[in-house]
Order: sequence, then structure tokens, then C-alpha cells
Amino acid sequence: MTTEWWQQPAAAVSQPMRETARLRQTQLTKPLGALGLLEELAIQLAGLQNSPEPQLDKVWITVFAGDHGVAVEGVSTAPQEVTGQMLRNFVNGGAGISVIAKQLGAALDVRDLGLAVPIESLPGVLHLNLAPGSANLLHEPALTVELCQQALEAGRQAVEDAAAQGAQLFIAGEMGIGNTTPACAMASVLLQQPVSELVGPGTGLDTAGLQHKTRIIEAAVKLHQPDCNSAFDILCRLGGLEIAGIAGACLAAAQQGIPMLVDGYICSTAALCATRMNPSCRDWMLFGHRSAEPGHAAVLAALNAKPVLDLGMRLGEGTGAAAAVPMLRMACALHNGMATFDEARVDRK
Amino acid sequence: MTTEWWQQPAAAVSQPMRETARLRQTQLTKPLGALGLLEELAIQLAGLQNSPEPQLDKVWITVFAGDHGVAVEGVSTAPQEVTGQMLRNFVNGGAGISVIAKQLGAALDVRDLGLAVPIESLPGVLHLNLAPGSANLLHEPALTVELCQQALEAGRQAVEDAAAQGAQLFIAGEMGIGNTTPACAMASVLLQQPVSELVGPGTGLDTAGLQHKTRIIEAAVKLHQPDCNSAFDILCRLGGLEIAGIAGACLAAAQQGIPMLVDGYICSTAALCATRMNPSCRDWMLFGHRSAEPGHAAVLAALNAKPVLDLGMRLGEGTGAAAAVPMLRMACALHNGMATFDEARVDRK
Repeated sequence: MTTEWWQQPAAAVSQPMRETARLRQTQLTKPLGALGLLEELAIQLAGLQNSPEPQLDKVWITVFAGDHGVAVEGVSTAPQEVTGQMLRNFVNGGAGISVIAKQLGAALDVRDLGLAVPIESLPGVLHLNLAPGSANLLHEPALTVELCQQALEAGRQAVEDAAAQGAQLFIAGEMGIGNTTPACAMASVLLQQPVSELVGPGTGLDTAGLQHKTRIIEAAVKLHQPDCNSAFDILCRLGGLEIAGIAGACLAAAQQGIPMLVDGYICSTAALCATRMNPSCRDWMLFGHRSAEPGHAAVLAALNAKPVLDLGMRLGEGTGAAAAVPMLRMACALHNGMATFDEARVDRK
Repeated sequence: MTTEWWQQPAAAVSQPMRETARLRQTQLTKPLGALGLLEELAIQLAGLQNSPEPQLDKVWITVFAGDHGVAVEGVSTAPQEVTGQMLRNFVNGGAGISVIAKQLGAALDVRDLGLAVPIESLPGVLHLNLAPGSANLLHEPALTVELCQQALEAGRQAVEDAAAQGAQLFIAGEMGIGNTTPACAMASVLLQQPVSELVGPGTGLDTAGLQHKTRIIEAAVKLHQPDCNSAFDILCRLGGLEIAGIAGACLAAAQQGIPMLVDGYICSTAALCATRMNPSCRDWMLFGHRSAEPGHAAVLAALNAKPVLDLGMRLGEGTGAAAAVPMLRMACALHNGMATFDEARVDRK
């Protein structure tokens, strides 16, 4: 049996540095625990970066784009042309993730894994064109084994490029019209939960549209579940190019020792799949935002994840994760910059 | 009957600008509503600033400090010396609010309304020394009418100083050992809810300490409630210097037309009192963080307020509000910077 690259163990997290950070949090001029999640984030980042002063100056965002064969079934309100149009919007600075990345001073990297409707070569986009989108998972596996491996590898390559630039935090985003459908199908099989508990309106389906989407996903799950003997199988049969890219990025970031900040429903489902492919990668994940898409709660629960924000966002593109970066930076600044009781000559109890 | 300054109406909010902003949100390249609370915040700020492009470059934080006579009853784990020691920590840059203010590029203004334990004059602190803290509300009114008026006026003065510097957002913070006790007493009378439903551990009381604190507050409420015929009476009898300062700041900011970002339990209780003194000030309030202190939920519900963050913080100093500033700035950046569907040539449904 061949060992695939993604089965190699994740980098080790420094437990001594976590303990050092935890002790420091008890010495800072505040009631113990009074910074809540900001304390936990600082301790986690100290352990991940193996540093007493965690830093998040260099944030890297890769948006993985891909189309979905199942879109022909009418599971989204938007036409597939929009995937490519949004790539143009990303690099022209007009999309949500473009604006946030600029505000954060983060690198925004866009990788086109395969569109259904061709688009001109865009400066600032890496066009991999692995396939003209995935196949229609209602009738056949979304990805062949070979294509899924290529998409995982594209995720690894993005992480290696981020690492070469000194990235201290990796965010994966996604763009792909219709991709809440494969995400929901994957979540249903990964969690062994009914589709009806995990399905949601995506970009804005009405009740009839949601019922139709539910039936499509249920049929796809019924077709493929018997052949899903591993998380990799689930990714091939029910995933998509950008979803596999994100899963590959999660696995590679953990191996490279770069903390990841996971976005909403699609990315969390890819992250869950990655943890089933290699459980050691979970240690390297932080979670940015609890999506308004209903299935996200179940995926987060399975990951034992508590996102930083809950703002009712459901945009994708990595925006939910990117929105949380200022909170992580604040956690670092407080941890590194606050005075201890001794330094400030403040009495303790 | 004399009309007090705080009874003058708040500045008007521009409803046309709110509608302009709401329309723009429907035109930006995202599914409608997909930015969740970030859309609502941008629309609210556009109306408050009467600007199609709301900006929060200039953020002003005033920390109001005061001591509490009731501290002698042992309602806090920390000695009263800490109030003054923390003022030193604020201006030396070592406190939580100091670190966050620096990260935000916000002005940090500290006003000492009256300490129980004298402290040297600190550069960067405005020492008003209205009284050596409040009186012990277990036995007598916390503030005389005159002292309460002076503290309200101190709040107004802070807002005028902020306005003179061009502040686009006003944050009030507080420092005062024991001040969850007066806040809880005020909330109980303002909301007509039992103390037992609103009391919490503050900086970290154990179960016995919490029971003792509950009995003290219940006795104070019983003593003063018959004489509480107005919100101003509640502020005098059960409040404190810094709490009255914050209430005054809330009232004055609304009159000056400066949006306020309200902090946690203490500040929200002062804000609630302010809205009872002059309901028109509510329009100018945004809320930063849902405190871990249990009474905060009830105060927020009465204000019909939905805070931006819920990070389990309970530090005070204005940190919960200040932590939310990056989210407000992101809301503005997205509103102002995203492309419309027409500009980006992205298809709508």
C-alpha cells in the first residue's frame, strides 16, 4: 500500500511554549480569563508558532476556484459564468475578499482549478485548468481519482508558495457557483447525518428551490455512499476541484507548520474531510466565523471548533476567516504587549 | 421646572442616507445579506455620519475612573488601591485598553473622577477629583445630586474634547474596583428584575463571595428603591462617579452627533440609564461585545442591542467596545470599496 503525501504527520505543536503562554496570561494585569477567547487564541498561536510572542503580520489568502457539474441541475440562483466573472473581480479589487485582504495587508492569491465557462487569462490568477469543472455528481463521481489527486496537489502547492513568502497564517477561500451542494453531500456522508438537517439556501434559494436542492443531494448521496470507503472516496465522488484544493491546503499547511484560519461552510467541510484523511492536521486549524448556512454548525461540532466571529455572514471567498484576522492580531498584541502585575506594580487580590 | 442639558434632543440621524446605503448594499457583488451584521453596521454608520462613505479613522476612547464606597463591604476580590494603580498602567501602555488603543491608532483619554486612595498626578490623566469615590450605597445615596451632576458634566466635557479633535466614534470605558455592584443595583431597579438574576462574579468572586455580594445589593435596592422616581434618582442613589460620567458621555455624544460604541456590563447599564433620562440618545449607540458577566444579557435586551462580538471577555476598561472597532472599520471598507454588479460586470441571477 502506497503512502500518499497527505498521510505524512503534521508538524509538532510546542506544548512547552503553550504552557509558557498560559502562565504569562495568568501574570498580565487583568482578572484571570477576562480576555476570554483572546487568551485562548494567543496561547494556541504561541504553541503553533513555537514563539513566546506570536505574530500575524504576514497573512496569506488563497482563493481556490472551480465549477461544478451539478450546477446544471439548478441548485444555485447564479449562472456558472459568475465563477469566472468573480475571479476578475477578485484581482480587480472589487470583491469582498479583495477589500478585506487590502485592509489586512494580506497577500491575495487566486487559483483557477477549472471553470465550466472559459475566461481569458487574468493577471494575478494562476490558471491550472485541471478540468472544465467537476462532473455531475448526481450521475457520476464528481472527480476521478487522478483529478482529485491533482487538486489536492494544487492545494499543497499554494501552501508551499505561501511558506516561501514567510506566511504566518494561511487562509483558504473558495469560489464556485453551486458549491454548497457538494459541501452538503460530503457533510452528510462524513457526519452520517441526513441531508435535510444540513442543507441550506446557499446564495439565496427560495423554499421550492431548497426542496429541489435537497432532493438532488439526497439522490447523489444514495448513489455514491456505497462506494465511499474513505474520506478520499468522499472527496472524489461528492467534492469538487476547489474543495479538494482546500483539503490539500489544510493537510499541507499542517505538515509545513503554518496555522490555518478556516472559513465557513465549504472550507470547514473540506477541513473536516482533511482531518478524516489525516487527523493530525486538526491541531493547526483555527476557525474564523460561524456561517449563517445551517449545515455549518454540524460540521463545526464534528471538528470541535469554536469560531471567533458570528456575524451572520455567508459570502464565502474566505471572507469569514479573513474577517477574524484582526481579532487574532489583537490577541497577539495583548499577549505580547500587556504589562504583568509585577511590571506595572499593580496589587493582586 | 428647569430643563437639564441632558434632556435636549439628540442630533437627527439621516434616514435618506440610511436608504442610500441600504440600496448600495443590494448592488455590491455578493448575495443580498451575505455580509450579515457588517451590512447593518455600514448602513447604520452611513446614517449617523450622514455620509455615503462612512469612515472610522478617528476613534476616541475615554476611560472614566472612580471608586465606590460600597467596596468596604467586600464585594470585590481586589483592593481599592488597584483603581489608581491601573490608571498608571493605562498611561504607561501596559493595560488591555492601552494595547488595543495603540493597535487601533485610537486616542486614549483617561479621566479620574475620584479615587478612594489618593495617587500622584499622572501625566496623561485628567484628575477631576470630584470626591474620594462615591458614598457607601448600602447605607446612603452613592452620589449627592450635585456630585452626580458634576460627573454627568465630566462626561459631556470628554465628548466635547473628542469632538474638538474630530472623533468619528466615541468609546467610553470604566475603571473602578467594585463597580459591578452599583451596576447590578442600577440594572435591578431600571429593569425591575431581581438582583439574583443580574448579579455576577465580577473580577472573580467565589460562590460564597457572590452570595454575600447578592445580599449587599439586595439590601441597597431595598433601601433606595422607594426614592427612585427617575433614572437620574437611580444614578444618584445606586450609581457612581465613573458610571455617571459614562451616562453623561452617552447623552452628550448623541447630542453632538458622534456615534458611540458601548462596552460591557457597566457601560451598557450607564447607557441604559442614559436612554431612560433621554430616549433620543439610543439612536447613536452601537454595541461592541456581549460580556461574560451574566447581567449584561438583560441590559442588552432592554436596549434592544445586538453586540458585534461575543468573545467571553469581562475585563472592562472599554476593551469589549474597542475590540469591535476593526469589525466596524471592515464594514465601512466593504461598503465603500466593493464593486457593484454593474462596475464588475458580474451577472445577477
